[in-house]
Amino acid sequence: MKCRKCGTSAVINMRQHKLALCGEHYVEWFAGQTERVIEKYKMFSRDERILVAVSGGKDSLSLWDVLLRLGYQADGLYIGLGINAPLPYSDASLEMTHKFLASDVWRVASDESRVTDDGDASPAIRNSQFAIPNFTPTLHVVDVPATYGKSIPEISREKMRGQGRPCAACGLTKRYVMNRLAHDQGYTVLATGHNLDDEVAVLFQNTLRWQLGYLARQAPILPASHEGLTRKVKPFCRFYERETAAYALVRGIEYIYDECPHATGNQMNFHKTLLNQLETESPGAKLAFYLEFLRARGEGAFTLYNATETLHACEICGQPTSAPGRCAFCRMWDVSRVVG
Amino acid sequence: MKCRKCGTSAVINMRQHKLALCGEHYVEWFAGQTERVIEKYKMFSRDERILVAVSGGKDSLSLWDVLLRLGYQADGLYIGLGINAPLPYSDASLEMTHKFLASDVWRVASDESRVTDDGDASPAIRNSQFAIPNFTPTLHVVDVPATYGKSIPEISREKMRGQGRPCAACGLTKRYVMNRLAHDQGYTVLATGHNLDDEVAVLFQNTLRWQLGYLARQAPILPASHEGLTRKVKPFCRFYERETAAYALVRGIEYIYDECPHATGNQMNFHKTLLNQLETESPGAKLAFYLEFLRARGEGAFTLYNATETLHACEICGQPTSAPGRCAFCRMWDVSRVVG
Repeated sequence: MKCRKCGTSAVINMRQHKLALCGEHYVEWFAGQTERVIEKYKMFSRDERILVAVSGGKDSLSLWDVLLRLGYQADGLYIGLGINAPLPYSDASLEMTHKFLASDVWRVASDESRVTDDGDASPAIRNSQFAIPNFTPTLHVVDVPATYGKSIPEISREKMRGQGRPCAACGLTKRYVMNRLAHDQGYTVLATGHNLDDEVAVLFQNTLRWQLGYLARQAPILPASHEGLTRKVKPFCRFYERETAAYALVRGIEYIYDECPHATGNQMNFHKTLLNQLETESPGAKLAFYLEFLRARGEGAFTLYNATETLHACEICGQPTSAPGRCAFCRMWDVSRVVG
Repeated sequence: MKCRKCGTSAVINMRQHKLALCGEHYVEWFAGQTERVIEKYKMFSRDERILVAVSGGKDSLSLWDVLLRLGYQADGLYIGLGINAPLPYSDASLEMTHKFLASDVWRVASDESRVTDDGDASPAIRNSQFAIPNFTPTLHVVDVPATYGKSIPEISREKMRGQGRPCAACGLTKRYVMNRLAHDQGYTVLATGHNLDDEVAVLFQNTLRWQLGYLARQAPILPASHEGLTRKVKPFCRFYERETAAYALVRGIEYIYDECPHATGNQMNFHKTLLNQLETESPGAKLAFYLEFLRARGEGAFTLYNATETLHACEICGQPTSAPGRCAFCRMWDVSRVVG
């Protein structure tokens, strides 16, 4: 398989796009596609400060990398969940994140700025022509056990009486911490690395039960509907998981391969295997499922179900909540005064 | 596994209902469920003459059987499609249909009317207590090659220039013939044997592409929206395929096992295998997908997309059509005068 642009060996073949590319042109294509999605869904501008939620995985580190190379003011937020059994998952994830930042892979090296022999700018330059000179991103780290006194598995065991996975407690905590830090530090936009496979698995799950309220709220961009909330965006929502993995690989980004030990064998992963069979049988099926959904949503198919909740400030932390009195986070964590 | 009703050996275990039953109680349960669906969706009454579309398969023959035993005036319509290569599929299907009618399995035998030793009516009696005495159903047979001059594979090859499967031509022809005969013979309702697996596969297909117009029209009952059209109902829409097969088996109904040779390996069947994996992982998932869809539909989720087409009479056959001049059937078959 040859690169369509230059005829050298391709590193990836994207059947749904009928497009094979070499490493250099793939990185260029990937950055261009990201930029297109950011513009298409009006996610953010170069004047805004962006907070990228980084987990140490391929999606979020690639997102941070590509945003920096495209010249966005992108800082990172790592949330330490205290998931370190049976393996030090959280510790290893943080290490990968620090490594990425220290590696300088995201920095546009000065020799990349030179024009190539044939007078044409190299792809690396074209990709990074907007990169901000001398911008050094900040990594915010919020360690949940250090800040709130318990790890995610601990609080979940306590609150769920040992029933079920800690994923619900984890999701609630991460949403809270992300939103809180973004607000406190003055970020107007929070970017997550959700890829197409993630989005399609959630869409599939909500469709299987026809949860129209959830369908109404699934989108590449969720505006800040209330003072104290931050706009949420998913610039990778149209990339297959293998495409973000290929980007990380070609760019030399080291990332944590393991998924969270608590996610192994969950329903979402089972649905992903079903959807992968569908994709193998019919390349592009997942992308079509997602894009046709967005089209239907854009036409107002779910507007009726997009109830805007009345929010008020949590009596403890001041974050917007639909619950009376304390928000779900402060209730779960038994918070009686502001911490963190 | 024991029958929940009587403790003898069960013939079927329905995981999604947590219900195992012996043959006798299964037949009783199956008839009761059919009756419930007919009533719930207001499909038809015992005063109406019902036309059952029979193919010689387990679903349609079981449907005809159970309707007769429940005391409905159910006649049959067999459409000969002329699909006899590589195997005599159509001929064998017609033979099975004739066999069913001749077998008298559907007739309530007089000894079943006797009360059992313990003074209780047997399940067979309870099921058939409404059966119409001395009612003998009629079987209408419309042979497509004899009536229109060509078999379905022939007309399809001619019109499609050998491209693709004949399923589109077949569907169009069957819909036309069913509607036409129902109308000409004064049937107010047309019943088909579509089971839950069929309905869910169609629903899945339409959902993958978010075809909201199709979603708006998928229902257990489609009212006769226009003079000349017949109400269409699917009394088996809540039965899994294995449940209709089990009913046919227990009732001793012989049916054609093979599916249409043209359907082998089609996308619908591929989707069915995916959905079967979902069902195995989570029993009841298919039923929930379908019922939650009906709930959403009932709440008006797709009402916007339920465009009522303006129909007029086909200039050849007089059947309602949205096409100008001749209807799609008369165009495909190059009909210039009424036949059949």
